[in-house]
Amino acid sequence: METNAIRVGLLGLGCVGSGVIRALTRNQEEIERRAGRQLRIVCACARDLEKSRDCSTEGIRLTTNPHEVVDDSEVDVIIELMGGIEPAKELVLRAIEQGKPVITANKHLIALHGSEVFAAAESQGVNVAFEAAVAGSIPIIKNIRESLSGNRITWVAGIINGTGNYILSAMEKEGRSFEEVLADAQRLGYAEADPSFDVDGTDAAHKLTILASIAFGIPLSFEQAYREGIENISADNIVDARELGYRIKHLGIARRTEGGIELRVHPALIPHRRLIANVDGVMNAVVVQADAAGAHLYYGAGAGGDPTASAVIADLVDVVRTLTTDAENRVPHLAYQPHALSDLPILPIDDVETACYLKLQARDRPGVLAAVTRILGDRGISIEAIRQRQSMNGDSGEGVPVTLLTHAVPEAQMNQAIVEIEVLEDVLSSVQRIRIETLG
Amino acid sequence: METNAIRVGLLGLGCVGSGVIRALTRNQEEIERRAGRQLRIVCACARDLEKSRDCSTEGIRLTTNPHEVVDDSEVDVIIELMGGIEPAKELVLRAIEQGKPVITANKHLIALHGSEVFAAAESQGVNVAFEAAVAGSIPIIKNIRESLSGNRITWVAGIINGTGNYILSAMEKEGRSFEEVLADAQRLGYAEADPSFDVDGTDAAHKLTILASIAFGIPLSFEQAYREGIENISADNIVDARELGYRIKHLGIARRTEGGIELRVHPALIPHRRLIANVDGVMNAVVVQADAAGAHLYYGAGAGGDPTASAVIADLVDVVRTLTTDAENRVPHLAYQPHALSDLPILPIDDVETACYLKLQARDRPGVLAAVTRILGDRGISIEAIRQRQSMNGDSGEGVPVTLLTHAVPEAQMNQAIVEIEVLEDVLSSVQRIRIETLG
Repeated sequence: METNAIRVGLLGLGCVGSGVIRALTRNQEEIERRAGRQLRIVCACARDLEKSRDCSTEGIRLTTNPHEVVDDSEVDVIIELMGGIEPAKELVLRAIEQGKPVITANKHLIALHGSEVFAAAESQGVNVAFEAAVAGSIPIIKNIRESLSGNRITWVAGIINGTGNYILSAMEKEGRSFEEVLADAQRLGYAEADPSFDVDGTDAAHKLTILASIAFGIPLSFEQAYREGIENISADNIVDARELGYRIKHLGIARRTEGGIELRVHPALIPHRRLIANVDGVMNAVVVQADAAGAHLYYGAGAGGDPTASAVIADLVDVVRTLTTDAENRVPHLAYQPHALSDLPILPIDDVETACYLKLQARDRPGVLAAVTRILGDRGISIEAIRQRQSMNGDSGEGVPVTLLTHAVPEAQMNQAIVEIEVLEDVLSSVQRIRIETLG
Repeated sequence: METNAIRVGLLGLGCVGSGVIRALTRNQEEIERRAGRQLRIVCACARDLEKSRDCSTEGIRLTTNPHEVVDDSEVDVIIELMGGIEPAKELVLRAIEQGKPVITANKHLIALHGSEVFAAAESQGVNVAFEAAVAGSIPIIKNIRESLSGNRITWVAGIINGTGNYILSAMEKEGRSFEEVLADAQRLGYAEADPSFDVDGTDAAHKLTILASIAFGIPLSFEQAYREGIENISADNIVDARELGYRIKHLGIARRTEGGIELRVHPALIPHRRLIANVDGVMNAVVVQADAAGAHLYYGAGAGGDPTASAVIADLVDVVRTLTTDAENRVPHLAYQPHALSDLPILPIDDVETACYLKLQARDRPGVLAAVTRILGDRGISIEAIRQRQSMNGDSGEGVPVTLLTHAVPEAQMNQAIVEIEVLEDVLSSVQRIRIETLG
């Protein structure tokens, strides 16, 4: 099979890069039996060549200069696993310019600059594959782009950041605070030293941006994605949710409505009977609702060297199979033909309608609940449940916790009600709002 | 787009055929925006043209003669939705002979005669696509064949018969017997008038046969699949299972072991914490364990006109995209190149090792449990739990129920122990065995 071997250049020899080399080596025979040819990493670049790695680099030319890999005339395909915008973007564009297909796990790059990258790729007639950019091992890109091609997709909702889900799961299991669990996660290597993209929703919004484009045929619109992190979720919220029949997950949600596309990342209460409410730890899951197929759920490891390598190699085999395919017969990068993207607007979060869980501290005094519910009533917001904890030892000055569940209401309307509630004299805290997603 | 329209001939206008026509009509624009061309049903055959249908057949030439569809020189692609072996097989082979790709939902045909069909297709250079043959809307064929191409797959386990899962779910929810629920399911149209393929495991074994081939690269081996139905599962078993922390599901399991491939369909106790244990009603789910990706779960509707149509149309778009692809660049029918299939043997059920739940009636008399456990101990079978219900009103003559959970043991060894237990004087019933699958 040596004669038709595909020669691959690898940019980045970290956790995922090592995983790719390991799997290509370990499963060489399985992969050849499927792909009908050999896939061989011929050169790779890394920042530090002295660093010890979890894989053998025997037979691979190593360099610290990524341009040497991209420019190598022996290389047929480039795998980009450096992450971040530059120099990844420049290198990807350079590879494309040379007619080399690119496989990337770089959600940041695709979410922000995918349009430019894909336009370059289309004009050169090469593929850019990015399955590994969203939900690690889960083939969510392929499932939406190919397996649901006969459907009108209504919504996509996913747990698409493993670190955030690990933190929420550990908070629930151990009854601990966000800060405590995050510190542990950092110590164990589940969270980065700078975890902000994971906990503030940026990483999930990168991935959601990509999912929304391929689900609805809209341009990549990261800047318009609403983002809310999990840093304000308390152990109390999690207990409340459980008692009310919900679990709290950090969701990315993209939904097609009459007015436009909802595109939002935030914590959400999900009915505990839903499969996705029971996805714990670093696992990811994505639910897609489509008109013919109905609801699909895909579950798997959302990060890690080996799982992400699985997606990278699947892309590599796909790309190799379409090297000689006419452009019009390839799966379009964003699922829809480039000329057929839709200009459906992204809805501002103010126009998004959700049911809500509200939490506040109030003086344990007659009339407080009446005042709160009157404000909600005046704004046309129906209440599904209300609960005021008994004060255990008189009013300690902090008041008692009040929990409300509302029916669906546009965000702007709820914001106004919250402002009015917060100025009530007997309301001692700001009002915390967590949206409810029934995903039904 | 009319110029590059693909003209499709449809064999079968039942539930799935109508779903295909409906979705192609309703989502025509969405599909064209993705596929870059029009997909048009130009002719269709049905047994009874007078029958009223759930779809408009305007603009479609109708006939009762399937050969007219297959032989129509205007038709580019055939969709076969008749089911059963003949005349489906003859028609599919005839379409292939004429160089027409075929999309089929016919698991029965593929499981039994896939090798012949694929060989014919390969010699003619056309594709036969069969995503809809397994698990309805769930893209399990594509996920295993393409998205896990970098992996060595260890096992596949699935709830792949919706009728069976509906019956077990209803038995659990309503505490009713198999017979009662089946009668209801037939009345409601969830079960066929002759439900034997659904409840005896034949239908699931057809699907499992296909999954095992594409997961492990082995020839289709339906005849060697072990099959056990759900007709002997009682409401008592389900209550037992729940109390022990399990749920009972009808599983298809294919597992790679050192000695060969396990290929078996039977009821199984699954720990209730597993996502797949919580898949209810007519829904299907498949878990795939692979060395790099880890565990994947795919969940969705396993039957029904619209969901199955979703899979058929996805295949249609894929097939159209590869009409001009060189044979060596197509995804092989059974995932592995035809010359690279493995001759791993299918293990006889006697050699399969599983933990077991055992249930029997015994006289409520000292020494019975000691005798049972001694037999198991002599056979090297460790017991994880044992439970004997108290007799409520003395020994009524039927004895009292005894439940045991064992650790993993080869089937043949357990069979011998069961024979010995059944001849004990104080054991009043046969011994019921349900295998336990931890799927961990």
